[in-house]
Amino acid sequence: MRSDIEIAQSTTLLPIDRVARKLGLGEEELERNGQYMAKLRLPREKRKQRGKLILVTAINPTQAGEGKTTTSIGLADAMNRLGAKTVLALREPSLGPVFGLKGGATGGGMAQIVPMEEINLHFTGDFHAIGAANNLLAAMVDNHIYQGNELGIDRVVWRRCVDMNDRQLRSILSGVGGGTNGVPRAEHFDITVASEVMAVFCLAEDLSDLKARLGRMIVGYTREGKPVTAHDLKAEGAMTALLKRAILPNLVQTLEGNPAIVHGGPFANIAHGCNSIAATRAALALGDYCVTEAGFGADLGAEKFLDIKCRMAGFAPDAAVVVATVRALKLHGGATGDLSRENPEALKRGLPNLRRHVENLQQAYGLPVVVALNEFATDTPAETALVREMCRSIGAETVCSRVWEQGSAGGVELAEKVIALTRQSHNFRFAYRADSTVEEKLLALTEKIYGGAEVRFTPQARRELEELEGLGFGELPVCVAKTQYSLSDDPKKTGAPEGFAVTVRSLRVSAGAGFVVALTGDVMTMPGLPKHPAAENIDITGDGRITGLF
Amino acid sequence: MRSDIEIAQSTTLLPIDRVARKLGLGEEELERNGQYMAKLRLPREKRKQRGKLILVTAINPTQAGEGKTTTSIGLADAMNRLGAKTVLALREPSLGPVFGLKGGATGGGMAQIVPMEEINLHFTGDFHAIGAANNLLAAMVDNHIYQGNELGIDRVVWRRCVDMNDRQLRSILSGVGGGTNGVPRAEHFDITVASEVMAVFCLAEDLSDLKARLGRMIVGYTREGKPVTAHDLKAEGAMTALLKRAILPNLVQTLEGNPAIVHGGPFANIAHGCNSIAATRAALALGDYCVTEAGFGADLGAEKFLDIKCRMAGFAPDAAVVVATVRALKLHGGATGDLSRENPEALKRGLPNLRRHVENLQQAYGLPVVVALNEFATDTPAETALVREMCRSIGAETVCSRVWEQGSAGGVELAEKVIALTRQSHNFRFAYRADSTVEEKLLALTEKIYGGAEVRFTPQARRELEELEGLGFGELPVCVAKTQYSLSDDPKKTGAPEGFAVTVRSLRVSAGAGFVVALTGDVMTMPGLPKHPAAENIDITGDGRITGLF
Repeated sequence: MRSDIEIAQSTTLLPIDRVARKLGLGEEELERNGQYMAKLRLPREKRKQRGKLILVTAINPTQAGEGKTTTSIGLADAMNRLGAKTVLALREPSLGPVFGLKGGATGGGMAQIVPMEEINLHFTGDFHAIGAANNLLAAMVDNHIYQGNELGIDRVVWRRCVDMNDRQLRSILSGVGGGTNGVPRAEHFDITVASEVMAVFCLAEDLSDLKARLGRMIVGYTREGKPVTAHDLKAEGAMTALLKRAILPNLVQTLEGNPAIVHGGPFANIAHGCNSIAATRAALALGDYCVTEAGFGADLGAEKFLDIKCRMAGFAPDAAVVVATVRALKLHGGATGDLSRENPEALKRGLPNLRRHVENLQQAYGLPVVVALNEFATDTPAETALVREMCRSIGAETVCSRVWEQGSAGGVELAEKVIALTRQSHNFRFAYRADSTVEEKLLALTEKIYGGAEVRFTPQARRELEELEGLGFGELPVCVAKTQYSLSDDPKKTGAPEGFAVTVRSLRVSAGAGFVVALTGDVMTMPGLPKHPAAENIDITGDGRITGLF
Repeated sequence: MRSDIEIAQSTTLLPIDRVARKLGLGEEELERNGQYMAKLRLPREKRKQRGKLILVTAINPTQAGEGKTTTSIGLADAMNRLGAKTVLALREPSLGPVFGLKGGATGGGMAQIVPMEEINLHFTGDFHAIGAANNLLAAMVDNHIYQGNELGIDRVVWRRCVDMNDRQLRSILSGVGGGTNGVPRAEHFDITVASEVMAVFCLAEDLSDLKARLGRMIVGYTREGKPVTAHDLKAEGAMTALLKRAILPNLVQTLEGNPAIVHGGPFANIAHGCNSIAATRAALALGDYCVTEAGFGADLGAEKFLDIKCRMAGFAPDAAVVVATVRALKLHGGATGDLSRENPEALKRGLPNLRRHVENLQQAYGLPVVVALNEFATDTPAETALVREMCRSIGAETVCSRVWEQGSAGGVELAEKVIALTRQSHNFRFAYRADSTVEEKLLALTEKIYGGAEVRFTPQARRELEELEGLGFGELPVCVAKTQYSLSDDPKKTGAPEGFAVTVRSLRVSAGAGFVVALTGDVMTMPGLPKHPAAENIDITGDGRITGLF
């Protein structure tokens, strides 16, 4: 069996201007980056929405992921195969996971975006630009303190970042050299995708909005609890200059030569987990359909995509695809041992997880839904039938997806179903009102989306809630940082738990992004490398062919 | 008076393929990066040297610099104006200084390379790739220790880096979180340009050589003093993959539309301070003349360019230009107060600095030399005459350069002189033999280049010398890290001091780069920001025009 990179490298790519031409774009609208990648510089009249918006989301995933990206790519290829002009909007991979456990994030098998090596390694440099902007601000914060601290920063909340899985930097003491070597303090590095600059980047409408948002970011607090912002440090101009090119969305292609706009990639816990508004807007303007995805399961990714991103950008999705695997559903049903063995009992016990997500999308958000069963060779007809049956009982069809194995040919049925769904009348709505309080928003999500019964605040979270309300941030959307493995805040509660309480341990304001982050449980914003990092297997030949990137 | 960025932004640039066409290059040899920048992918037959090599160097500089880059650009423009097909080979700017004190590093006035904003901010991402490779290795080192330390690393010498002036990271304690958050240790961040990866990048001949050099880099030592390398960690494949595109040289243009290859930029103290071998090789292959520069004064930049880079690459320069200013010569002569005031006495006292550098290039290296006096409006005819007279007495002509004010028109006389010089017969040689010991090399440099009398080793340096000789590194070239403000190792000894001793405080091996670094005095490898960083003034308009970058 060929690896992903072998498939990708054996495919003949279209020059990127030919992909652009399919979208009616000329050379003057492209900033080419090599032969197969380009940044899009769209004039205003080419940024108007005309396409329908399709969200690909998933059940609560297992560690391997359920194949959302692969399904999204295969679906878009299949829709194009049927003559529906479809443009993908996807997230960019982060270098950290590429060198850690996960390998690339560009789909798999016959459903990939290419050039996969380039996209996985640096791509067009967007994440480096975000990291540089983040770290410029950090250097300016500490320099301000070192040079006399006129603004009276008492507590720094801004973190340095690096696009690497580097546990050694999770907790450090910096500025310990004495003399002219800074002012000692404890601090923490995040991986670049966890930076608020990334979230801002993905939510900004244009350069002016980007600069204004960057200026609003809070870097620390005075002794009196007054926020100190990037604007107070006069940092946002230089930061925006660093992001000038990065903010333009990137055009690449699928293995089948269809257009994919790949741009931004914020964490789906402390941030909103989906590609940039600029990318989605471009895809909606250039195609009749935009297929996009959101990180983790629907309780995190879809919720934030809908309640944060769509609300801010004014997007209204037309259909949702929920990706599931028989294997993961068995795990939700408590299966242990070999997941390839037929196990209808475990599957049945796990199905409520899928059911909850489908019903949430239908009822809380008013979206037409189809379930894409990402098929494995070991799935049995009896198992597939169980999934189909449950879904049908709640008004959702199930389609088996074989895009990993077959590319667009394996996604035709899914594509037909999705196109039909987008013609269905529906009434998209949000899970909570913008003008409700943070507490009301959290309760709405807990009851309507997670299936829980109550929200508890630790004393610290209660205090932080009062503070942020006092500072006027009480009506921002909430961004819940929660385990991706459960609908609840406890990763061990698989399936569809009920009656639980969600405990909010801490609240922070991402004032530039424009949301309040509610932290439940420990959220890891700096991954570590495994004993044998994927990097050990990555190599390159003398003539430049990369191997071992999977 | 218009600022550099205003001049650059008011200039109409040629599309980069038109610049490439002047060099006989077609689309297939370019990896375009936007409209005005490209990476060069030259086939083997287009990498053969045919051009003459001209090095631009300088006297010991003052803090403002003497204008080497501006002079190099103006000289190349003037040579092209005279019909001599000339290609520039220059260093890439580092983001740190751009946001600190210095602003951009793309020349000035009418002698600039463009697009200056892009080149100063990210450019084609090379330094980000170098930083990522550096920090991947760092994460793998600490991960190895955390995961059981099979290789028995007892002392880590590999440093993390960031392309930012960030004194807060000079000295840190990392891994202090306890539990799964790494193993506590003291460490130091460098600015990216100080990473050995940068030096390796600039000295590598091709991808295979790059990978081999990266693999040889020493990351730490066992308790028994055995080096542990990047290869031992299986890191060099992934690091080389990260540098795959970066290693291709970048093509841009001057304000006058002439080709400039801008690639790499290592520190000129702990590394060798000049652009990549790949860039110089490309310029020599594509032009009849290559004009290049080396960092700091001739005692550091030119010496390393000649003894390290030219030796490794097999380059033999044809002429050298020594840039000087009347202002700096007055400072070397002990002038205080207003440097614009005529002060022939101070100038006379400072002239020996220029004389020593010119004589070194003539006698130690056998190169024909011309002095380029970077003219200021306040220079008087009497002062200029003094410089001319001294130079003539040692067989070097002096030409006033007005390229900052006039572009190529202000450099015609210099260009004519340089072209004539390259036709002069000469006998290029190195300052020391490759097979001499580290101590002999240091003595040769001290006597022949710096004008000192002896080399002293601290006990630590003596011990390190024995260790590195024991490990088989005793015949590598030496890279002296020394103050740039003096020919000696004492920044206060201006002019042309004599009879001094150079004290080597420490010796390290850069086994990948292939040289031994001899540290004299404190060498700053992580700059800090000033009270009001240049970043505070950098801004961008809603339509993307950057301002305040000078």
